[in-house]
Amino acid sequence: MANFDKYRVNPKKFSLKDFDTKDKTERSGSKEDNEAAMFELATEISALQDILHAEGKRKVLLILQGMDTSGKDGTIRHVFKETDPLGIRLASFKAPSDEELAHDYLWRVHQQAPKTGELVIFNRSHYEDVLIVKVHKWIDEAECQRRYAQINDFERLLTETGTTIIKCFLHISKQEQKKRLQERLDNPTKTWKFNPSDLKERELWPSYMEAYEQAIKATSTEYAPWYIVPADSKTNRNLLISRLLCQTLKQLDLKYPEVPEGFKSIVID
Amino acid sequence: MANFDKYRVNPKKFSLKDFDTKDKTERSGSKEDNEAAMFELATEISALQDILHAEGKRKVLLILQGMDTSGKDGTIRHVFKETDPLGIRLASFKAPSDEELAHDYLWRVHQQAPKTGELVIFNRSHYEDVLIVKVHKWIDEAECQRRYAQINDFERLLTETGTTIIKCFLHISKQEQKKRLQERLDNPTKTWKFNPSDLKERELWPSYMEAYEQAIKATSTEYAPWYIVPADSKTNRNLLISRLLCQTLKQLDLKYPEVPEGFKSIVID
Repeated sequence: MANFDKYRVNPKKFSLKDFDTKDKTERSGSKEDNEAAMFELATEISALQDILHAEGKRKVLLILQGMDTSGKDGTIRHVFKETDPLGIRLASFKAPSDEELAHDYLWRVHQQAPKTGELVIFNRSHYEDVLIVKVHKWIDEAECQRRYAQINDFERLLTETGTTIIKCFLHISKQEQKKRLQERLDNPTKTWKFNPSDLKERELWPSYMEAYEQAIKATSTEYAPWYIVPADSKTNRNLLISRLLCQTLKQLDLKYPEVPEGFKSIVID
Repeated sequence: MANFDKYRVNPKKFSLKDFDTKDKTERSGSKEDNEAAMFELATEISALQDILHAEGKRKVLLILQGMDTSGKDGTIRHVFKETDPLGIRLASFKAPSDEELAHDYLWRVHQQAPKTGELVIFNRSHYEDVLIVKVHKWIDEAECQRRYAQINDFERLLTETGTTIIKCFLHISKQEQKKRLQERLDNPTKTWKFNPSDLKERELWPSYMEAYEQAIKATSTEYAPWYIVPADSKTNRNLLISRLLCQTLKQLDLKYPEVPEGFKSIVID
């Protein structure tokens, strides 16, 4: 059983600075070796998802957070490369609509929670409601503290009602983001992803790191742990999240439903 | 430009009997050749989807209908094998909920219609509301006729507001269904998909074929054509639908957005 303790946040002694964005521990051997490892993991995740769905009892939620260009989309593309598109559901949380804003911030998130047999991926999440809003001071510190507690309560509800939650912070350096933003600008088939407002957020990098550190520390629970994923290397990021998900699914000890006795003698005519 | 006229329904002279479920025209060469062709098509669909999304102007809707085991799930798995999970959206229409039943039958369907830049796949659709309900006589003939017209009006609305609709009937023989149902029963990792009520529907095969024939004839329009996909061969089915979708996307002449003049001189710091 692989040990992910070095990535798992211990809220008692957590500082983002202790985590190296450049860590490549998960990689080994040649590019081809890593590709082969990814293919094997993606195939295993696909097989486990099929049993999760067939069994129809448990629920799995993978939450991806990270700065712009940290690789949330790329993670989804690679980790679920072999998984049946029918087997996963993606929920992307962008700027809330007027209707969403008229409700509490967990309202739209709760609607997207997985049902039995489902594997749901949150591309951003309710954590934006203690990140961007904190950095821009749209909420004050007291409100932010209240929200950490509300989020912990909400995630406890989900886990107590059958959901396994994995939270991943895709940790890149400011330097790596520079490279990736420049790549978007330099490739005409990628430039549409570029938004000048991204540069404004980039200027707030230290405030974002502080907000992430505080949020992660406050919401790393036994039942819904955070993992800091070194993500300057895309390969390292994909391998780590795949392994983490794979092990989590295996630990659920999923089983295909028993075949009802009467089914065994049925002959179709 | 490939010609799909032999599969495209001409409502003036349409009879399901003229379409051979065993047709394998799309296959050629060895198993490996067909796999290579599928990989190439799936890669092309993935590339075209990226432009559809980047452009953000057009909408595409692929509707899959067919008897149980006809391969709707398998089609999605193979045709979109290389497509980014973030690039497509699936809508599966099962037995309607009480709330859905309290609205008109197109209410829940309209909610799932694609938005700009989206490629949406309907796994079953509003056509169930002129199929199962007709076969079981839950609606009378007059209501069924009204619904054909309502469906044509609804699909005209979607196409006039920017949606390209492709409707595929996955055409299998009753004999092929027998084989596939038996396979589900004989494989313990597939048996969970088997529902004894499927056998009741199977007994109604001739009524279903009649309902399909009538519905397809009544709703094959210039703007939302039906294609009869020979689907006893899974390879033939996957190749045909991939080619049809690929050509449809190409004909949209999709383009990445122009890079705004000011972007070219931006240097990230």
